[in-house]
Order: sequence, then structure tokens, then C-alpha cells
Amino acid sequence: MKHYIAASNPMRPQFNPQAGYAARHFAWHFDAGVGTITLDRPERKNPLTFQSYAELRDFFGALRQATDVKAVVLTGAGGNFCSGGDVHEIIGPLTRMSMPELLEFTRMTGELIKALRACPQPVLGAIDGICAGAGAMLALACDLRYGSAATQTAFLFTRVGLAGADMGACALLPRMIGQGRASELLFTGRAMTAQEGLAWGFFNQLYDSAELLARVQATARQLAEGPGFAHGMTKTMLGQEWSMGLEQAIEAEAQAQAICMQTEDFRRAYTAFAARQKPVFQGD
Amino acid sequence: MKHYIAASNPMRPQFNPQAGYAARHFAWHFDAGVGTITLDRPERKNPLTFQSYAELRDFFGALRQATDVKAVVLTGAGGNFCSGGDVHEIIGPLTRMSMPELLEFTRMTGELIKALRACPQPVLGAIDGICAGAGAMLALACDLRYGSAATQTAFLFTRVGLAGADMGACALLPRMIGQGRASELLFTGRAMTAQEGLAWGFFNQLYDSAELLARVQATARQLAEGPGFAHGMTKTMLGQEWSMGLEQAIEAEAQAQAICMQTEDFRRAYTAFAARQKPVFQGD
Amino acid sequence: MKHYIAASNPMRPQFNPQAGYAARHFAWHFDAGVGTITLDRPERKNPLTFQSYAELRDFFGALRQATDVKAVVLTGAGGNFCSGGDVHEIIGPLTRMSMPELLEFTRMTGELIKALRACPQPVLGAIDGICAGAGAMLALACDLRYGSAATQTAFLFTRVGLAGADMGACALLPRMIGQGRASELLFTGRAMTAQEGLAWGFFNQLYDSAELLARVQATARQLAEGPGFAHGMTKTMLGQEWSMGLEQAIEAEAQAQAICMQTEDFRRAYTAFAARQKPVFQGD
Repeated sequence: MKHYIAASNPMRPQFNPQAGYAARHFAWHFDAGVGTITLDRPERKNPLTFQSYAELRDFFGALRQATDVKAVVLTGAGGNFCSGGDVHEIIGPLTRMSMPELLEFTRMTGELIKALRACPQPVLGAIDGICAGAGAMLALACDLRYGSAATQTAFLFTRVGLAGADMGACALLPRMIGQGRASELLFTGRAMTAQEGLAWGFFNQLYDSAELLARVQATARQLAEGPGFAHGMTKTMLGQEWSMGLEQAIEAEAQAQAICMQTEDFRRAYTAFAARQKPVFQGD
Repeated sequence: MKHYIAASNPMRPQFNPQAGYAARHFAWHFDAGVGTITLDRPERKNPLTFQSYAELRDFFGALRQATDVKAVVLTGAGGNFCSGGDVHEIIGPLTRMSMPELLEFTRMTGELIKALRACPQPVLGAIDGICAGAGAMLALACDLRYGSAATQTAFLFTRVGLAGADMGACALLPRMIGQGRASELLFTGRAMTAQEGLAWGFFNQLYDSAELLARVQATARQLAEGPGFAHGMTKTMLGQEWSMGLEQAIEAEAQAQAICMQTEDFRRAYTAFAARQKPVFQGD
Repeated sequence: MKHYIAASNPMRPQFNPQAGYAARHFAWHFDAGVGTITLDRPERKNPLTFQSYAELRDFFGALRQATDVKAVVLTGAGGNFCSGGDVHEIIGPLTRMSMPELLEFTRMTGELIKALRACPQPVLGAIDGICAGAGAMLALACDLRYGSAATQTAFLFTRVGLAGADMGACALLPRMIGQGRASELLFTGRAMTAQEGLAWGFFNQLYDSAELLARVQATARQLAEGPGFAHGMTKTMLGQEWSMGLEQAIEAEAQAQAICMQTEDFRRAYTAFAARQKPVFQGD
């Protein structure tokens, strides 16, 4: 088997967002395979703007080709995750838009979720404080979610006169916490407490605020150790099988896993196991 | 943008079930946008009959056109919700029916669930005491469910020799409480306790029996304040996205939310927010 | 209505795995309608081999025609359930296989899950101790799952360099415990504790190790009392409706339940109820 996935892979010429990437509408930090995206307008609780939506959409899209980024942490600065679409910078202008413009906006926000789900890297949310509106949807789209006791998660679209159907909420939230709980949060817009979020399966774990980011980055580093190709396949199949029949899903996994069984990482694991060592995965 | 949704809307000529609606097989109470349906044969724990199934199916169907009803509470009289299909009035006759007649019956009960899911109003169950068989399915079909410590919910079809596949149970219950718990309840027919129902996401909250109905009506009044158009879209999309691929669901929500962004309620919310006031929604 | 389902049913000539069935790669015990499959290489924690996969696949396939087996218990010998695919007997050879051979293997393991889901009997897992890899998938595919405080369930495919997409894991696990918790287990490969498994809906109940098997067999005997035809339909519909639209699922259940209403078991239940007796189901 050849090693096509390498720095010189001609199918990935575009983008390697190492430490040098100059993000404009969020902070980007890269270390040991783990990239951290920090929404960083803490004085406003890190709202999203037209510009930050667009850059995040493009950035997650580019991560599909990024060989150096093995896992991504998504967080917010100053003790809050994200307050959602900015009232003055987004909601105001939306009230004056034509239908094609509105659809361009809602599709852009949806494309951000699609890109986050489509990149092969596991995305881990480190979600403290306020997590509201489109911010709650960013959290919901992550593969893994970690909060603190102070996290307040509100799908508050209804509070601004809109439907709970935003960026995939009516699809994602019921699968995460159950159809009945999702219905309550989407109809009422009330905040889910951190303890509810943990008990209901929204959060994988809660940590002290002071150590939340470090803990999530540590988990991300573990995932970054691989097996990267297989992790990407896990993520792909979780999406592929979303609405597949069970028999079709089982056949789809037979094919997907057979592919993974021809990776070098699978051989490395077996060799390491036979030698009673820890495998060192390389992603091919 | 025009205000088509009004008392004079020519697309809704049929039906406005205000206080004056004369229900025959249940009690109907209407107040401040909230309609309450009470199954009211308390001496038999409010069983369903051929007649009450049919009237409920037609009534929920008519609610699609009812502009005055903004939210619905579904409850039972005398401390119980519903004991299901009456043994003497329903099960006995069913044992003597031909296949076309049986299918007419099972389709009627299914149409009741479809109509409850298809009306734009959020439907809130106030579910005390016995909640069994078809009664449990009525509860399961509600958007939100509230019980008391005394609520016993049993999908007991298996106890009368039937499958757990009744009125959509094998589709709805796994999404509400998880596939494994649903399997146990449907195979064994055992009663789910109220505490299990809360822990598993079947109930959104438990209240004291004495205040259950008032509490649920209060939540219904809050939802009745709107945004009604957007609430209807939330409910529609929760149904639409039931078995949609995730990417398709995100596009569907981009369209649905763009529609909601052209409502007056969205503008009202923005204007109120800018003026630091509470928005008054009107449903258009 | 005729009684076609009988010992002489010409559509079921092949197989009645009564007590005399001579299993080669697991132990088979049959008593009072309940068959117990015991994975029985306790010195290795009951690993799966190419041979045991194949025999289990064929055996569950044959159960579709077995009229005498009403419920199945799946367990492991010596205090553990199953350690998964044996490292030396399976993983080693896999690292040397061609793609067609690999696909033949992954399809065989998937066919085992399909056969377990397709047989009409409810399958109950009695799952103590180690439950890992393909063993965790066998547990996940059961209709009902029971563990002890000592049960450790790990979808550890990632530890050997593979994807979490194995034998239907990315489809089944999210529906069982929620999308977020499933993602964590599949990406990290960490063991789910028994208490987590109970709280998350993976296990239906935990029992003391000493009485686990007897308790699960007792529940299996209750299910074996029937109604067998209806139980089979419940299982069929839970699979059929996996990715069906909600409206289509409701129509599908109208048809399925109308069929069940023409069984003798439905009449027996009504007659028994009218006589204030416990119904005795016979499966037709």
C-alpha cells in the first residue's frame, strides 16, 4: 500500500493552517496537531457577524485539505462561548433584506454547520458561560462538547420571532438529547442548564471553568494522536448513516471498515499489540 | 409584506373553535388563545371509543385552519389521563371485524396522531394517573409532556396480544427515550414510572397533581403569546426532518428560517429589543 | 382463520434448534421456549473467531424458521461477555488479507448483526464483565440489555487503528444513548461504565453478577409466553421504521397492527380479559 497522504499530496495543494494562519475574525492557535479556534470579542460575549460566519465557513471547509491539523477545539474568550448572531450587526440588517438576501444568509450559516460536520478532524467544543442562538448551534455541531457548571445554552431563536429551525437544530438537537427535550428548548427558547446538558447527553463532561480549555485541549491531543484516517471515517459514517436504513448502514460500515483495514495504522496497531507496545499512528 | 393571516383569510373559511365549539366526545375549553381538550369519562379513566377517536382526529385536523387557537392542552378528567381503547366498546368489536374494517380502524387511530402532529399549534399533554395504550400514544404524540409523580405510562398493546407497533409507537418512542428503553416498554408492556419518564426525557417536567393542569396551561399561554407563525414552522420542521439526511435538513432550515425572517413578528422582536421592550407577537 | 404456524408448516422445514442442537463454537441451552447462547472460551474472555462469527450468523439466520424458540438469551461464560475479535486469530490474519477478503470478513460480521435483528425472537443480552469491540456490537444489537456493576463496555475499534464504523455502530449507538455520547465512545474507544450504561439507556437494568443470567432468563421466559407473533411484528417494525418518515411509519403500523388484530392471540386476550383470566398465548 502506498503512502499517498503526505505533505506532497497533489490533491491537497491549497491549505495547511499551521501556526502562521492569520485569522481575521477569530483567534487561531496551533500546537502539536491541535488547532484552537477562539471566538474573541469578549466584551460582547463573542457574537457572530456576517464576516465571522463567512470566515468560519471557509476555514472549516479548508480543514478538509489540511493534513497538519488532526483535531480542532472551538471555544470563546473571556468566560463565554458565543452570544450568537449580533443584534445590531446581524439581526437589524436582516430585517431589511430581500428574500434572496435572507436565503443567502441562512444558507451561509447552514454551510458553516455543514463544513464543520464535513471536515475529517474531530471538533471539540470548550463551552463556558453564554452559549446562545447561533452559538448554541455551533456547539451542537461539534463532535464532542464540554462545559462548566456556569454554561447556559439557549436555542433562543423563538425569542426574536423566529423558528427553532435554524442551522439544522430540528435535526441535530433531537438526536442529541431526545425529541421531547429538544422540542421544549426549541419552542420555549429557555436556557438549558449545564447539569441538564450533562444529564441529557448534550455535554460529554463538565469541568471547572479555570481548567476547561486545557482539559479539552488534552482530549484533543489524545485524538490527534490518531488513528487520524480512521477518526475521519468515523465522523464521515456518523453523518452518512444519519437517515439510512439499518441494513444499509451495516453494509456501508462493512465497506468503510474494510477500507480502514488496509491502512498502515491498522498494521501498526497489530504490530504494537504483538510487541506489547503502544501503537504510534501516522494517519495512513 | 401583506397581512394575509387574518380573520378574513379566504384560505381558512371553515373553522374557528372558540369557546362556543360543542364537542361531543370530550370537553373543550377555550381561553386566551389556549384550548384545552379534556377526555372526560372519569368513571372509566377516560377511555377512547370509536366516536372519540373520530372526533379527535377531525378536531385536530380542523385546528390547522383555526386562527384563534394558538396552543392546545390535552388532559383527562378525574386524576387520570386516558386508559386507551375501551375493552368493551373497542377491543370486543375489533375481534369480530374483517380485515378492511380493521385497517379502517388502525388508520383512523393513526390519522389522529398525524393530525395532532400536523396542526401548527404546540400541543401540551397534562398527564396524570393512568396513561395507557392508545392514551400513551396520545401523550407520546404531544409536543411537550408534563406528568405528576402518580403518572403511570404503559404501552400495553402486547398485553392484549398485539404488537407494540401502534399509532407510530415504534417510530416515536425510540426518538423520545432511546431505542433500548423503548424496546423494553414495547416488548413487555410494563408501566414506565413518572420518575423514569422524567429521567428518560418522556416528560419535560413533573408537577403536583393538584397544580398540574394549571401549570401546563400557564406554559401554553406563554407559547400562545407567540411567535405563532414561527412556532408552527418549528413544529413543521421537527416533522419534516424526521428521516432527512443532515445536509438536506440544514438546507431545509435555511429555507424555513428565511421565510420566518420575512414575518412582521421578526421585525417586532428587533424593534422591541432596540427599545429594550418585550416584543408583542401577532402571528404574522 | 387457519392455524398455519404449526410444527408441520411447510414454509419452515429446515430447523428447530431444540435442546439437541449441537453448537460447535458456542454453548446452546434450550428450556421452555428460551434458548441461551453462551460464548464459552472463558480463559480468553470469550473472543470471537472466524468460525464463531460464521456459526452465529448462520444460527441467528436459522432462528427465523425456528418455531420452538420464542426468546433468546445471549451471554458469556466465566464472568465476561465477550472480548471481541481475537487478536491472534482475527486481527493478525486481517492485516494480511486482500481487499475482497477484508470485505468478506466485514460483511460476515455485519450479516451477524442483520441476522440477529431479523429473527423474530426478542434477543436479551446478559452482559457481565468485559464487553469489548465486536462483543460490544453484539450487545448493542440485542433487543434488551442487562448488565452488572462490573460490566465494562468498550467500542474500542479506534484502539486498533480502525473506525468506530463497525457492524453498524454509527447507526445503532447514537439511537441507543444519544449522538453526543456515542460520538465520545466511538472516537475515544474508552469503556462505558455500567452506571453510565444504565443512565444512558444502554442497559435496561443492572443485576448482581451472581443472579444476572437467571434474571435475564426469567424475563426471557415471560416474553416467551407471548404473544409471539406480535412480538415478532414489534421487532420487525422497530427495524422497518428506523429511517422512515413519521407519516409513513404511522401508515406502516396501521397495516402491521391490523394484521395482528386477526391473530387468535388477540381473541384469546379479549376472551381472557372478559373472563377476568390471564390470557394464554399460542403464537398464532
